[in-house]
Amino acid sequence: MKLASLRRDRDGALIVVSRDLASAVSAAGIAPTLQSALDRWPQVEGALQALYEKLNAGQAQDAFALRLEDLDAPLPRAYQFLDGAAYPSHITRNRKARGETLPADFYEKPLVYQGISHGFMAWNETVRLPSDDLGIDFEAEICAITDDVPMGVSAEDAPAHIKLFVLVNDISLRKLIPPELKRTFGFLTGKPASSMGPVAVTPDELGGLWDGKLVSGTMNCWVRGERVGTIETGKDTPFHYGHLIAHVAQTRNFEPGTLVGLGTVSNDDESAGCGCIGEIRALEVLRDGAAKTPLFAFGDEVRIEHLDRNSNSVFGRIQQTFAPLDAA
Amino acid sequence: MKLASLRRDRDGALIVVSRDLASAVSAAGIAPTLQSALDRWPQVEGALQALYEKLNAGQAQDAFALRLEDLDAPLPRAYQFLDGAAYPSHITRNRKARGETLPADFYEKPLVYQGISHGFMAWNETVRLPSDDLGIDFEAEICAITDDVPMGVSAEDAPAHIKLFVLVNDISLRKLIPPELKRTFGFLTGKPASSMGPVAVTPDELGGLWDGKLVSGTMNCWVRGERVGTIETGKDTPFHYGHLIAHVAQTRNFEPGTLVGLGTVSNDDESAGCGCIGEIRALEVLRDGAAKTPLFAFGDEVRIEHLDRNSNSVFGRIQQTFAPLDAA
Repeated sequence: MKLASLRRDRDGALIVVSRDLASAVSAAGIAPTLQSALDRWPQVEGALQALYEKLNAGQAQDAFALRLEDLDAPLPRAYQFLDGAAYPSHITRNRKARGETLPADFYEKPLVYQGISHGFMAWNETVRLPSDDLGIDFEAEICAITDDVPMGVSAEDAPAHIKLFVLVNDISLRKLIPPELKRTFGFLTGKPASSMGPVAVTPDELGGLWDGKLVSGTMNCWVRGERVGTIETGKDTPFHYGHLIAHVAQTRNFEPGTLVGLGTVSNDDESAGCGCIGEIRALEVLRDGAAKTPLFAFGDEVRIEHLDRNSNSVFGRIQQTFAPLDAA
Repeated sequence: MKLASLRRDRDGALIVVSRDLASAVSAAGIAPTLQSALDRWPQVEGALQALYEKLNAGQAQDAFALRLEDLDAPLPRAYQFLDGAAYPSHITRNRKARGETLPADFYEKPLVYQGISHGFMAWNETVRLPSDDLGIDFEAEICAITDDVPMGVSAEDAPAHIKLFVLVNDISLRKLIPPELKRTFGFLTGKPASSMGPVAVTPDELGGLWDGKLVSGTMNCWVRGERVGTIETGKDTPFHYGHLIAHVAQTRNFEPGTLVGLGTVSNDDESAGCGCIGEIRALEVLRDGAAKTPLFAFGDEVRIEHLDRNSNSVFGRIQQTFAPLDAA
């Protein structure tokens, strides 16, 4: 099924969305917000699924035409966002271009950080930042959303805790990240609030794209109207969602609504392009000695859309521009 | 005023607690949970304060005798936990003992990481971990709890966003932290869920202990029944709460309920003892060439209590033992 949140209060109002994103119906009678649904997922999943089926059959009472512009992020604030750097070509290129290497144990265990888990913007929301001199960039990702995950779960058992997937634009500030990582305490100011695609989608809805480990399909990325990436998301990583979840769950339980991302999607084959400008610039540095593709200036647009084998949008698109904070 | 949460559901049930922690009254008519109160703080603060004054005057209807054993953490799950390493003596001793140095820009801007913000345990809850071979340690901290903090707030204006303070035992796994920090993505498996003192306290309740920058008083720490630290918390740090908030808020807004800690309290004067075993062991290494105080084994107890100038407990005490996960 597909779930989304109408703009209301801090957590949005949960709605069930039809397969074609054309219509929707309130889920308030089942759970007022997506977080509250995830908090009681075993109790509400069946009712949400039944409502989804009714909606798709054109039989849901009080169904309405969905206006994507009315949507907030499906989960505007979450208790945990675990973001990885699972695609080696992404992090290898970025670090090589600035003369740095991968952590020695990169392939032994997934590289994951605890990221900002609140302030998620809607798919079309203008990204407001204090300056466009910070190296503004996008990062295209597919994030899993879990239910309660118990401490000690195995990588094999972990994927069963994934209840939804969502498209994420993990916004990054390239000038702040390298000096911040040098301080060893991880990402902080270099990672402002991010954005989510319009709908969260259950694993079963993905059909053959979800093999229980990775989500296949093609991540299409446009920068200032130009396509810069057509990346196959289901390959070129030694780690899957279960590995990341199990790694972090070694010493903690997760709250429902935990977001788990594999990091910027990337393929070994350079002709696939890139899921962020930083990697494009890294390839330029490595090939030509200097980066030429500019990072985002205020007024620029980014667009991300993940397509299935029939070129249908799986999660809906993210399409945003950047603007100064004081123009709010 | 003093607020706490009775154990109920995932977020607890908000109660107002009397100044002497002897009695309490439900705040359900004002806000069901502490998070919901913080989400609407300007609308509910007056009503909570009025109820607190009635309770202290013995005039609150339906007041009941408070049993500390019935309490959950005041805020069992939050959207953000920003934890610093603001007391230089703590981090200097720890790193020196393992042959490492401080980040070059340590004194220029506060060192802060995004930590696990869910799973906060009650003051007396047994800490369950997969093994006591991970180097289990406590860290005594006082955390601020903020309301909505706007991006770009100054260090001078930031403290006005602090609505509550709470005692925190930031549990740490010493064997996991150094290799994890070497990977540059910050703390993750080395920081399992932490614990909170029984009550959250408003800044005005602290009287002269709160100078708008730091909380004074003495942090008393006991390990296996032996007092190991009597640390003055209002000195020996170049950074105050406002500095930490402003540093992170450069590129993000905060959700209400954000926790901000200065890290393990520590004094330049070694005779004050330590707010964690790791620092005791670091001092032993530096003085004697080898650490002799053991980290926690299952069955050991830690106790933390912050006292005012009259030796009264400011936030209530944390008193916990450690046990294996599968003994739950």
